[in-house]
Amino acid sequence: VVQYDGTGYHGFQRQPGLVTVQELLEKAIKAITGEEVRVTGAGRTDAGVHARGQVVNFHTAGTIPDERFPFALNSVLPPDVVVVGVERVSPEFHARRNAISKVYRYSVLNRVFPCPFLRRYAYHVPQRLDLPAMMEAAGYLVGRHDFASFRAAGSSARTTIRTLTGLEWRREGDLLHLRAEADGFLYHMVRAIAGTLLEVGRGKLEPEEVRRILEARNRDLAGPTAPAHGLCLEEVRY
Amino acid sequence: VVQYDGTGYHGFQRQPGLVTVQELLEKAIKAITGEEVRVTGAGRTDAGVHARGQVVNFHTAGTIPDERFPFALNSVLPPDVVVVGVERVSPEFHARRNAISKVYRYSVLNRVFPCPFLRRYAYHVPQRLDLPAMMEAAGYLVGRHDFASFRAAGSSARTTIRTLTGLEWRREGDLLHLRAEADGFLYHMVRAIAGTLLEVGRGKLEPEEVRRILEARNRDLAGPTAPAHGLCLEEVRY
Repeated sequence: VVQYDGTGYHGFQRQPGLVTVQELLEKAIKAITGEEVRVTGAGRTDAGVHARGQVVNFHTAGTIPDERFPFALNSVLPPDVVVVGVERVSPEFHARRNAISKVYRYSVLNRVFPCPFLRRYAYHVPQRLDLPAMMEAAGYLVGRHDFASFRAAGSSARTTIRTLTGLEWRREGDLLHLRAEADGFLYHMVRAIAGTLLEVGRGKLEPEEVRRILEARNRDLAGPTAPAHGLCLEEVRY
Repeated sequence: VVQYDGTGYHGFQRQPGLVTVQELLEKAIKAITGEEVRVTGAGRTDAGVHARGQVVNFHTAGTIPDERFPFALNSVLPPDVVVVGVERVSPEFHARRNAISKVYRYSVLNRVFPCPFLRRYAYHVPQRLDLPAMMEAAGYLVGRHDFASFRAAGSSARTTIRTLTGLEWRREGDLLHLRAEADGFLYHMVRAIAGTLLEVGRGKLEPEEVRRILEARNRDLAGPTAPAHGLCLEEVRY
């Protein structure tokens, strides 16, 4: 289980010439075990997206005791990537394919002025937001639907049907948190949903229009993709 | 009223050749009014110390409407320094001398692993801490006392007597927050108190020993100065 501040990284997945979390983890494992391993992550978080509960798996023949593994890895990882738990699993375990659901959180700072402490972790929206309207609109998206309206333009998933088991807004002082749980997410899906619900909050869309956008299966009708830095992979369930 | 992430600054007060918050504010005021002003801060926060409620005053003959001032200043300030309010006061007002009390918060992350999101804002203590003992020890320091045991070694304040009106620990998940309110603080006083109370939490000092350390007026007896990044100036009261 890995936590990271995604600000300084080009996302989770390895990309030639760019610093990614996957590459850091593979280098850290090599540094402590000497093994060239490939790490599999449950969620392919984008550049700037954070994680509080990313799950990765890898195969090792190393002899470091399980409970020492996090300390050994953290001793060679930078301070913005922290391993918070290690568990021995069956050799067939696959962090992404075996996941039953994933939980993401999108955070919005809704006050007039930005906050120096949250500038990397919450999207600053200075306008007044209509939270009850955003809550109503979120309700229309819960369930098993074709989410083609809420994915990155031009992305090509095999199917765009997903089951969104939960989508709720919660207020914490000046912060609004959108919690989204699903069996899987399309590329940019949470950010497209957050961006659309924020249009509702700003009064630019009526809550019921979100239902029609969903049914239209047309990305052009939904709101903009909310910025990456408000997003965090909270938990992966197995 | 100014909020800042102190990580990148050499404290509040101007120092030749170093980037400080005071200098940034004075440059920002010059950029929007054309005036060379001197800014007076309520608290001279150290390098790495943060602020959620620093108060500064300055004199201006500028014509920018009061309510536009924060927006104008923020447009030229970096994102880790944010003006969150401006108020017109009498020309005699002095942000430091007129303050009745200041509130600081010292934050400790008490879990086995560090946290990538709190690495700049809380002191990580992986050992189990005895919070009731730390609370008891804090109680001995409340009141009007000579705090010579809890200041930077070699500092030379006119008097080392201060009135600590409040000193309480509060738990918030893995975080422990020490809230300290006083009519004034000696240099490094909150950090010396936090460092000493953490020695109590680790079982290296008995709670009652903190009373004896206070009475001895000897800096050598107290615990180490806790690191700057856990400290935040929360509020200044007038």
